[in-house]
Amino acid sequence: MNSSNPPASERRRRTQRPDGPSRRATLYDIIFEADTPAGWWFDIGLLVAILLSVAIVAIETVPEFGYDTPYEAYFWGIELFLTFLFTVEYILRLACVRSPMRYAFSFWGIIDLLSILPTFATVFVGSGKMHSFAMLRSVRLLRVFRVLKLWRMMNDADELSDAIWKARNKIVVFLAVIMVAITISGTLMYYIENVLPNIVHDVRFGGLKPDDQPERPESRFTSIPQSMYWATVTMTTVGYGDITPQTGTGKLLSTILILLGYSLIIVPSGFVTAELTSRGASEHEAPCHRCEAGSQRVDAVYCYRCGHRLEHE
Amino acid sequence: MNSSNPPASERRRRTQRPDGPSRRATLYDIIFEADTPAGWWFDIGLLVAILLSVAIVAIETVPEFGYDTPYEAYFWGIELFLTFLFTVEYILRLACVRSPMRYAFSFWGIIDLLSILPTFATVFVGSGKMHSFAMLRSVRLLRVFRVLKLWRMMNDADELSDAIWKARNKIVVFLAVIMVAITISGTLMYYIENVLPNIVHDVRFGGLKPDDQPERPESRFTSIPQSMYWATVTMTTVGYGDITPQTGTGKLLSTILILLGYSLIIVPSGFVTAELTSRGASEHEAPCHRCEAGSQRVDAVYCYRCGHRLEHE
Amino acid sequence: MNSSNPPASERRRRTQRPDGPSRRATLYDIIFEADTPAGWWFDIGLLVAILLSVAIVAIETVPEFGYDTPYEAYFWGIELFLTFLFTVEYILRLACVRSPMRYAFSFWGIIDLLSILPTFATVFVGSGKMHSFAMLRSVRLLRVFRVLKLWRMMNDADELSDAIWKARNKIVVFLAVIMVAITISGTLMYYIENVLPNIVHDVRFGGLKPDDQPERPESRFTSIPQSMYWATVTMTTVGYGDITPQTGTGKLLSTILILLGYSLIIVPSGFVTAELTSRGASEHEAPCHRCEAGSQRVDAVYCYRCGHRLEHE
Amino acid sequence: MNSSNPPASERRRRTQRPDGPSRRATLYDIIFEADTPAGWWFDIGLLVAILLSVAIVAIETVPEFGYDTPYEAYFWGIELFLTFLFTVEYILRLACVRSPMRYAFSFWGIIDLLSILPTFATVFVGSGKMHSFAMLRSVRLLRVFRVLKLWRMMNDADELSDAIWKARNKIVVFLAVIMVAITISGTLMYYIENVLPNIVHDVRFGGLKPDDQPERPESRFTSIPQSMYWATVTMTTVGYGDITPQTGTGKLLSTILILLGYSLIIVPSGFVTAELTSRGASEHEAPCHRCEAGSQRVDAVYCYRCGHRLEHE
Repeated sequence: MNSSNPPASERRRRTQRPDGPSRRATLYDIIFEADTPAGWWFDIGLLVAILLSVAIVAIETVPEFGYDTPYEAYFWGIELFLTFLFTVEYILRLACVRSPMRYAFSFWGIIDLLSILPTFATVFVGSGKMHSFAMLRSVRLLRVFRVLKLWRMMNDADELSDAIWKARNKIVVFLAVIMVAITISGTLMYYIENVLPNIVHDVRFGGLKPDDQPERPESRFTSIPQSMYWATVTMTTVGYGDITPQTGTGKLLSTILILLGYSLIIVPSGFVTAELTSRGASEHEAPCHRCEAGSQRVDAVYCYRCGHRLEHE
Repeated sequence: MNSSNPPASERRRRTQRPDGPSRRATLYDIIFEADTPAGWWFDIGLLVAILLSVAIVAIETVPEFGYDTPYEAYFWGIELFLTFLFTVEYILRLACVRSPMRYAFSFWGIIDLLSILPTFATVFVGSGKMHSFAMLRSVRLLRVFRVLKLWRMMNDADELSDAIWKARNKIVVFLAVIMVAITISGTLMYYIENVLPNIVHDVRFGGLKPDDQPERPESRFTSIPQSMYWATVTMTTVGYGDITPQTGTGKLLSTILILLGYSLIIVPSGFVTAELTSRGASEHEAPCHRCEAGSQRVDAVYCYRCGHRLEHE
Repeated sequence: MNSSNPPASERRRRTQRPDGPSRRATLYDIIFEADTPAGWWFDIGLLVAILLSVAIVAIETVPEFGYDTPYEAYFWGIELFLTFLFTVEYILRLACVRSPMRYAFSFWGIIDLLSILPTFATVFVGSGKMHSFAMLRSVRLLRVFRVLKLWRMMNDADELSDAIWKARNKIVVFLAVIMVAITISGTLMYYIENVLPNIVHDVRFGGLKPDDQPERPESRFTSIPQSMYWATVTMTTVGYGDITPQTGTGKLLSTILILLGYSLIIVPSGFVTAELTSRGASEHEAPCHRCEAGSQRVDAVYCYRCGHRLEHE
Repeated sequence: MNSSNPPASERRRRTQRPDGPSRRATLYDIIFEADTPAGWWFDIGLLVAILLSVAIVAIETVPEFGYDTPYEAYFWGIELFLTFLFTVEYILRLACVRSPMRYAFSFWGIIDLLSILPTFATVFVGSGKMHSFAMLRSVRLLRVFRVLKLWRMMNDADELSDAIWKARNKIVVFLAVIMVAITISGTLMYYIENVLPNIVHDVRFGGLKPDDQPERPESRFTSIPQSMYWATVTMTTVGYGDITPQTGTGKLLSTILILLGYSLIIVPSGFVTAELTSRGASEHEAPCHRCEAGSQRVDAVYCYRCGHRLEHE
């Protein structure tokens, strides 16, 4: 991680932290950073509040604890209190940055706003109509996106998102290959499980009147999109089993598809691993000043090639 | 990627691009290349047309949108229009290459032809009989293979297919090992779930008349091919669950098979990853200035091919 | 593994092995170490006893062999005998270490005690009431934790736990990412499979009396926690199939989620592999003769720690 | 692959190939080696014969093609012919090696014998009783083990089995860790899905007469071995779905188990990949004679470090 490409948190600090030792700068350090005790406790409190509010959204949908039960009032109370806290947090964030407008329209500013709006919507539109229209209830579900605020706390996630970002071209190619494979194998399975038996049926009984014809054979591969859903579920080895081949030919083809798909799908894993391995190998480099040999060990004192004493900055 | 083994697109350009700045050469650049604005827009248009036509093939098979519904005419209209576009594209491709015959019988020439033929077949054989014979409808499904034309657009796919190609021997060995494992474990499970209970049955009730014998125990492992289908689905961790062991011994054996199979199946992933890692480790270095050999070691001082002293910037 | 960070077994030996050649020191070597013949046989005997006792706990729960069958007495007899052996082992361990209190409250001391307590509890509280209260039976199940004693025997497990330990931050970040993904995709699926059809229902039939309204559509995504359970089962490619999307939109979304999830979930595998690969690359070299620093580069000429010229054989 | 540890085929040639240019030596080269045209065609013929005989064993178990159908005689005829060929092959192998006894008791000698014995057993014991006793039919299934003869043809399998062999300690540790995890999670799930509801039941209704007590809640986790089967199927991400948690607590625990198990199970994949990556990195080494720099490229002409011209043998 060289200095010409600082992490996002560093870039934000440079442009948004108020200059000098003021009250706003202190507030900024508490709210946006985690390297002071107050900032650390603020983060812990925020983490608990987010998890609690997400848990409430989830539990409210369980029939035993949800709407029209005695628990509803308690959950609603906690929810209002948490929304109050998140509103205060949002206002404080706007108050302590150099450019509130810029923050409000940044990714985190929008996430922060979205995490309080659904509760206000429910409050102001009125809970009286809430029971007759499921639409408003579903707005409440949006509160679950508060979980996105957790991302801010994951410092190590930089490396993860960095690796995914570097492998993005390969992941896109991989997804395209998988989609071509899914489309073709889905169509083939639709043909084998559905069209082929129908052709046999038409050839044998096509001359009879519709009423005299026996029932057409049934299949779970009712359409190509359905078959593509099956192909996705199969090639990624999820394998729900809600749609499975019934004919012998279909089983044979799906056996071949599974093996081919398995051989194919291990490749992108390899790409990402290779990317990460080469990162790991090259992230400790500090070349020797005398012989310019790179790839020195992190804890090296002397150059492995010429024995020169390494000077670490 | 050294100069003695250029990518397929480069080889095609050398043999098929018309010489000099002519109208045909400009057309060639638009249709076959993507490095001019016009060529880029042509590719985007082709991409949209392919995805649209594949989507139509898929959606037509959904009963709510398919044949004998009001939507049929719209889809058929779009389909005819797209086929017209693909026909024009095919003719232009033939017109702008140096050797049309060579293109027509190349892989992409055949794919391009196959992507328009099914529609013409449906048009000329007549849609009157189309409703009584499912055979012709299924010819329409072939249009889904137009998705293969997408491959042309994936420049990064070279590396993917390269990695798979280099690992082909290992993948074949892996598939052979898996097939031996599938055959043996499928036979064992057939024996345990089917033959073994039948032997017990014969020993206990074999002396009685057929009518006095109790029902034979049933099993979903009805034959060895069926058991091999189960073994494939299990060892690749797809696990549909349409066939599962019923007896205790069968469950014990399948537990052992799953663990052994899992230990076995992680090996080829490792092969591909190792292949890609060694590629990745050697792909970042600047080529030699004298002989232009790439893939130098990171810490190389002299070129491995011509012995020239490398100059790192 | 440099000398400043010895493995746990080495650290325990330094602090707990009695000094000099005494009877207690010999006993310590037999019980805690495996590098003498007697110590090796002790380990084998312990291994057999642990596996046998765990197998009995498991088999006792099978209705054909369990409680209220003729086998119960045999199993209980073996169990009492094994508990006697483990009790003797526990007392000997306490007797031969330098500080019995320290051992008793160490991780292994607690495991050793927990592996004998449940049997004593069953014996002393009395088996008379054991048949009427399942509570006591379930205490017996705790004996299965004796399997944890196996860990002591796995010397190679050091490397495994070391790799997991080094990758702990990445695994935590990965689990957090997965949890965010599970929460959001679970909520989305709950909305699509459950709320969306209900909104359509309310809009179309909301004006009618409750009795005149048709049945609401049913879904297996009965709540957000249920949907999150589905999302976990799906994103990890387990795919039970007990909960599957029924609507077309749900199938489309779950197809997208599966592919995105698959792209996401291959990343942590890469992290661990990269960690292990960088370990593996540096573990084959001979240590420096002067300072005994290991993990030299394959092509090192000078020791990275002391600058001594390495002599390769 | 240095000369001090030759592959198995090389070792066999040294000890078993007859000396000098005799008829037996020529026969040996045809039967055991694949580097002469005759030897290559012999291998192809053997491959076809093995696959055909294995396919017949499998197809015979399909009710439509199996015993008591018109096809039986054809299959039996092919089977007798193939057994005749394998018998001739076995006799020729014994005839052309230096020490027939040593071959007969080697791994391949036993496999060769086992691949003809089942057919002879069926012929000599008599097919009259074959229909009444399934026991003899199942002996026929043993013929499927002929598939093991395929292994002989996989030259690249050396590397695969080598990698598995080198990673054997880690695979054993991994299997032990998985087994400990399976035992503990299986027991926990048995407790949560089965014992816990029963305890609640006993506490609430234990005072009533047996007839007045409501039905005990049912669970698919009927015993600990059954739960361990579930845990295996779940942790390896096979996920049949024949046994799934029914209670909320069970679903919560299995969600946690799946995530923990997934974090755990990616580690051994990493081990094998790391092993293979380090193999790949070191298998091309041919150190420079002047500066002794190793890890040269396979196609290197000059040393990357000192520019010395490399001399390949």
